[in-house]
Formats: sequence, C-alpha cells, structure tokens
Amino acid sequence: MATPITPREHDFPRWYQDVITQAELADNGPVRGTMVIRPWGYAIWERMQAEMDTRIKEAGADNAYFPLFIPESYLQREAEHVEGFSPELAVVTHGGGKQLEEPIVVRPTSETVINSFFAKWIQSYRDLPLLINQWANVVRWELRPRLFLRTSEFLWQEGHTAHSTADDARQYALRILRDVYVSTMVEVLSIPVLTGHKTARERFAGATRTWTCEGMMGDGKALQMGTSHELGQNFAKAFGIQFSSETGTQEYVWQTSWGASTRLVGAVIMAHGDDSGLRLPPRLAPLEVVVLLVKDGEGTAAAASQIASELRSAGHRVRLDDRVDISFGRRSVDWELKGVPVRVEVGPRDLADGLATVVRRSDRTKQAVALAGVGPEVGSALTESQLSLLEEAQARMQDRTRSVATVDEAVEAVEDGFAVLPWEAVGVDGEARLAGSGVSVRCLQRPDGTLADADDEPGLIAVVAKAY
Amino acid sequence: MATPITPREHDFPRWYQDVITQAELADNGPVRGTMVIRPWGYAIWERMQAEMDTRIKEAGADNAYFPLFIPESYLQREAEHVEGFSPELAVVTHGGGKQLEEPIVVRPTSETVINSFFAKWIQSYRDLPLLINQWANVVRWELRPRLFLRTSEFLWQEGHTAHSTADDARQYALRILRDVYVSTMVEVLSIPVLTGHKTARERFAGATRTWTCEGMMGDGKALQMGTSHELGQNFAKAFGIQFSSETGTQEYVWQTSWGASTRLVGAVIMAHGDDSGLRLPPRLAPLEVVVLLVKDGEGTAAAASQIASELRSAGHRVRLDDRVDISFGRRSVDWELKGVPVRVEVGPRDLADGLATVVRRSDRTKQAVALAGVGPEVGSALTESQLSLLEEAQARMQDRTRSVATVDEAVEAVEDGFAVLPWEAVGVDGEARLAGSGVSVRCLQRPDGTLADADDEPGLIAVVAKAY
Repeated sequence: MATPITPREHDFPRWYQDVITQAELADNGPVRGTMVIRPWGYAIWERMQAEMDTRIKEAGADNAYFPLFIPESYLQREAEHVEGFSPELAVVTHGGGKQLEEPIVVRPTSETVINSFFAKWIQSYRDLPLLINQWANVVRWELRPRLFLRTSEFLWQEGHTAHSTADDARQYALRILRDVYVSTMVEVLSIPVLTGHKTARERFAGATRTWTCEGMMGDGKALQMGTSHELGQNFAKAFGIQFSSETGTQEYVWQTSWGASTRLVGAVIMAHGDDSGLRLPPRLAPLEVVVLLVKDGEGTAAAASQIASELRSAGHRVRLDDRVDISFGRRSVDWELKGVPVRVEVGPRDLADGLATVVRRSDRTKQAVALAGVGPEVGSALTESQLSLLEEAQARMQDRTRSVATVDEAVEAVEDGFAVLPWEAVGVDGEARLAGSGVSVRCLQRPDGTLADADDEPGLIAVVAKAY
Repeated sequence: MATPITPREHDFPRWYQDVITQAELADNGPVRGTMVIRPWGYAIWERMQAEMDTRIKEAGADNAYFPLFIPESYLQREAEHVEGFSPELAVVTHGGGKQLEEPIVVRPTSETVINSFFAKWIQSYRDLPLLINQWANVVRWELRPRLFLRTSEFLWQEGHTAHSTADDARQYALRILRDVYVSTMVEVLSIPVLTGHKTARERFAGATRTWTCEGMMGDGKALQMGTSHELGQNFAKAFGIQFSSETGTQEYVWQTSWGASTRLVGAVIMAHGDDSGLRLPPRLAPLEVVVLLVKDGEGTAAAASQIASELRSAGHRVRLDDRVDISFGRRSVDWELKGVPVRVEVGPRDLADGLATVVRRSDRTKQAVALAGVGPEVGSALTESQLSLLEEAQARMQDRTRSVATVDEAVEAVEDGFAVLPWEAVGVDGEARLAGSGVSVRCLQRPDGTLADADDEPGLIAVVAKAY
C-alpha cells in the first residue's frame, strides 16, 4: 500500500497497472487472461451497470438470460461471425465425467443462441420490435491480456433486437448509441466520446454497420467504449427469423446488437487517473464523500460522525473513516488512490476554530470551511468535480487531435493523440498501411462530428489513432 | 397461449412445466440441461436479487467477481470438495485454437478460487472478518434437468467469508440464514421455511455444518431454498489462509459460504401457483397492478390511463394494458397466468356507473369500486395478498406435516407432505433406508423449531420428506 505509483508520464502501462493494484480494483486470475474484480472495482462496475440498465429499460428493452454454453454448430451458421470468433473460443469437450458428442463453445457473444430463440418467438409483425438485453459474462481467449481492457472473460451487457424494417433497426441502433452509451459516458463517466461508424475492416463480425463511441485516454490512445451494430438480415437468414407482415407476406426481420463491458472501468482509470491514483467522477463513485477523523480529540469523533450523518441525510453516499489506529496520512493516501471525489477531514485543531477541511480529489484543493458550511461546500465540490473532469478530458481531446492530410502524417501525429483526415485520403489501402504501423481507423464521421447516412457518403473524415 | 394448463392435482410436474411455458418464464436451452430465462422470469429473479443484495450489504458483505474458469488442480486441494463435485464438472480442454496444458473447470461453486485469493489478501487479524459475495453463473452437469430447479447452468449468489474465530464464523453463517434468506423468503416470497442443520449425509462437500431453509411446495414435497455453511478450517488449511493474531501467533481463519439461486423462481411457482397459473406475492411481482382497458368506449381509455398514472404516483409498479385489438378475455387470462397480483378492469358499462373492477389474483375475487376508491382498494388488495399467500402456505405446511415414530411411518407419511420424528429414531442407518425410498432428512432442529447448538445435541427431531 505504501509502494509509490509509477509516474504516468514515465510509463503509462505500468502506471495503469500500479493504480489497479494499489487502489485494489482487480487482480489476475489463476487461469491466464482471467480477472478477479475486487470490491472497489466491482462497486464501480455496479454503478455503471445501474446507470446503463436504467437507460436500457427506458429504451424499451427487457432483460433476459441465455445460456453460457452454445453448440459449436450454432456458431457456424453465420459465415463472417464464425470466422471472426473462431480463434478466440474456449471449448468444453467433457461434461459430467464423459466426452461430449458435440463440442460446446463458451459464448464469446450471444447472437447465435439468442437468434435461435427469436426464430421461435417471432411469428407476426405484432411480435416486433422484440427488444432484449442480457447482463452476462463472455469468454474470448486473449493472448495479450490487460486487466479490464482485454481479458479472456469479461462482464458486459449485450442487447439483441429484431425489427420489421431496416430503418427501424437503424434508428434503434442509433438510439442505443446516443441514449445509453454516449449519455452514460458523458454524463456519468465524464468521458467525452467521438461517435461514428467503423470501416469494413473494423466492423463486428456479422454486422452490416457498426456504430462506435471512442474515447481518448490519458496517453492519447483511443479506447472503443461501446458499439451498436446493425446486423441487417444476416442472422435472420442464418436462423430463419421470419414474421408475417401486416399484408400477410413472410419477411425476414432486421436486427441490431450492442454491447458495453467492464473495459469501461479501464476507461475511467485511464481517462481520469493521475499520479496519486484514481479520480472518480462523483456520479460514478461508490462513495462520494469520506469523512476522515484525523485523530481522537475533544469532540472530534462526535463531530465527524455528525457531519457524516448530515451528508447522508442530504442524499450523498458517505463513509465515516474513524480508524484512528491507522495513521491519518496513510488513510488519506488510500482514499486518494481509490479516487473518492471529496474528503472531509475533521481534526482537533480545525474543530477548535469551528472548522473542517474539504478536499477535492479532482484538483486536490483544500478548503477550511465552517461546520455549518460543510454540506453546501461538499455539494458544490461534487457538482463541480463532475464537470471539471469532463472539461479536462474534453480539453485533452481537443489539444491532442490534429488535422492531417496524408496517411504518413497520420502515423506521425498519432504518437501524441488522434489524427483526423479525409477518408478519401486513406481508403482500404491506406488503412492497411496504418495497420502496419499499429494504427487504426477508429471511426468515420462527417467533418462536423455528426453521423453519416451511408458508408459511402462523400466527404467523410477518418479519426485515426493507436488504440487499446 | 390458449392451451389449457394441466390441472395441478392431476399431474403436478406437467402443471409446473405448463405454467413455465405459458407464463413465458423460461425455455430449455440448446445444450441439454441449460435454460433460457425469458423476460418475465428474469424480472422476477431481478427482484429477488435486489431484495437479497440489499440484505447481504446490510450484513456487511461486499460484492466482487471471481473467474468462471478454475484450474482443475485447485478443485483437488480439498478432498471432500473434489469428491462431491467431480461428477458434475464441465471441462474446457481447448482455448484460442489450442489444446490447453492443464484442463480448466467451469466453476461449480467458487470456494477454491476465492480462497486462493483470501490467502493472498489476509495477513493480519485487522483484515478480518473478510466478507465477500458474488452474483454469478455456475455449472453443474445435470442428468435429470428441470427448469429453475435443476439446470446445468444456474444463476446464484455465493457468499464467502473468513473470520478469526469459530464462533464468529458460526454467528455470521446464522446471521445470513436469518437476515438474508429467511427474511427474503418469508417477507418477500411469502414462503414459510423450516430451518435447521443438515445431516452429515446431506452436508455441503467440504463443510463442517450446513444450515438450510426448507420450504414445502404445493405437492407436499420439500425444496431446499438456501444454505449457509460453516466450513471450519478445511479450506483455510487447503489454501493456507493464515493471519497473525493480536498476540502475534499465526492462525488459520474460520470460514463460511452461503448461496441461493434461480431455483427460488421455481419455489415461487410451486408454492403459490394454481390451475390458472402463477400467483406472485406483491413485493416480488415485477408488476403489482395491471390496468386493463376492457374496450374502447366513452372516455374509457382516458379513465384507464388516469387510474394507471395515479397508481404509479402512489408508488406502485403498474402497467396499462390498452391493447384492445387483443380480446379482453385473452389478456385477462395472460395476466392471470403471469400472476400479477391485482388487475383493475376499466370498461364502458362500469364506467357509466362511475366504477372500475378490482380483481385479486390470490383468491380471484372481484369487486366493483367507485373510481375514487380504486387507489385505496388496490393498496389493501396488495397488502392482504402478500399476507394471505403466506398464510395459505403456512396452513399447508401445518396440515401436511405429520409427527411419526418410525422410519417406516415416515416413508408412508411423506406421500402427503413432511414427516417429523426423533432423529434418534432415524440415525445414519435409518437415513440410508429412507434414501432407498427416495426420501431424505431435510434438516435437524429442536422440537420447538429452533436451531441446535451442536450436531449431537440430544432430543433433536428430523424433518423428513421427498424433495426436489
């Protein structure tokens, strides 16, 4: 706990790993590539889940649960899908002490099993749209694992929907992108994102179009934070999902799928963390405030406890830390590491003057406040921290995004952040050259940042970066 | 949807399956023994989860997440544990396109992997108690699967704790039994349960004592609804979980584990269901009230919508069903099938008299109520239904539990329900004879229903039944 964190500028990947270890967010599991999410990390994920789950339900989707195990033959029904996922599969060959007749795949995603049920449940246009979401673990064998960002097992939500028209499906995919993902990332995680569609090379295996949210991390690299796919009728045809239309004809449904995962915890670490550890936006933080009893003294314990209970009554998530057998310094450092947005320090000296100290994690400013003013000061510290983290991340994205004209310039520019250039100047060949330098097209969008109507809309720009 | 349900008295297992199908609770997955939990079934599970999760957090445990995959060697460290679980394991032999060096087991429960981390995290008495819970899927290969009750994959929570003394561990295991499980089952699920400890034969593999909650289903059979185990120092020794005590000695921790699963959804179906389908206790129901527009008519749609919004404002979970293109009869039957506790029917004839009809699912009584009285009537219907379902289940358990004197009498008595007899009259040999007739000792308790202090406490009674 007392080991210093590697400075962020010095070695970003080691800094990331140090923060995860010292803030007790996660650990490597015993099977290579797996992860243990420790209570603090999991509490952050639970809050992300709750925020996304509310938005998913507002978008009309119902939660359900489909099996972990999928017959290998299901994966093979959609050609691109099986090709995309085959190298990453975990395969169960023995069950209940016997060799299985057909090998079973541990779900890497659930399009195939869910669509086999959609085929059964959907008969008529009255059954549409069918809007389903599930919270689940999935497995994709990972050769170069990194905690939260790329693990062989991860937790996520995956939405799967069926619609009667291509336009309905598209509007729904975009609604999820905007009202679930962008909304959660910007308003809760305080991370600005660029949106656009993926190139054919980067598209989800089996999709006709993939919409994405891309955030910029503290080192200028991109992180794909959530994707929403139009699947066209690919899975509908592979699984025979047909409905009788209002005019009595038999039609294949149009579909979407969309997901966001525990990698968002990694995004928060990398977007906001500093050399003292994690910085959590208040709306996401499992604890908004820690009231720290500096040490026992005349009335300090009672005062700290009263401040904590007043803040709780005001609706905040609060912990009272009165563990005076551990040094104040060490406890402060630990709460800084864990990124709790506000600390209220209550010690004998301040208290004698009727004061307590309010410390903001975002900019590490401290302010002595009269006891009666603690509540309001904490309230503004929380509101302002939520916003200032977002503004800081926005400023970084602006500062570290360069407009360039050629693929070569892009390769140079992405050493510091994002590069933006006309998609016409890249093209499929340019994209392959970028890939040779470990650079990818993160998304295509219009020059004003809005979404294209069609993949081949003229004048689109490519956002290019190194990515996690 | 229009297929009638098999009468409960006629064929209980078929009735159970019919309710699951027609209330759209679940479906069989493509891999034998797996299950698809459909939105209505999952919404019920989500409410159980929320109720248990709140109680688990109140008991001081933190949620975390451990990997699905466990190295086979971990399972083998605790002798009874591996013996108990080996026949049920699913084994991954291939990952990322290659044969694995060491086979990986899909977790049947997480004692082994969690305790390998406890060994790392626990150093000193200050780290104790360590109280962890996880919500996860687990896999136990099932040869005779039945939806919700016995499936190869199921969802559950599993708690794992470490304490500095045997007594602390025991008190915590009992606290979970009482404050999490019994509380949820009685107060939310309206299912009375008997509590006691398991015989050595029925104990969890690796535990020193297993506490259990046993409910009686509609056919008089028992269902184990939740268990809380004292693990002694078995896993502590197998995984080397030691701490330095206050006096500086090195000690092994004392542990508990405890779990409840999606089988609770099966319990609710079998404890409360009738020949019209599911009956949900209001506190558990995803919807407490459905406001049914009987048909369009003068002002009916507006009145129905206003009733729905008033009920929502009063804090109820409400759906307005105004799908008048589907017959009123069919919609009524569907909501009965799904077990929604209260229906408010709004039709032109009633409305002309300033009335609406309030229908209680629990006893199927209908009452015409003045519009202004709908809110209060719904309120009492909900309160009374919650209680009456519990009372009905309590009366059944009382009526169908017989005191007997011998094992032979017990075998006869369990055709109708539970049998109770002195444990001295059963013993290990008697238990084996019971097993020969498909009967088991569900728990041991004192004659007054309270918990024993020790396994060999004299005068204990055995509760004996056929069980799911």
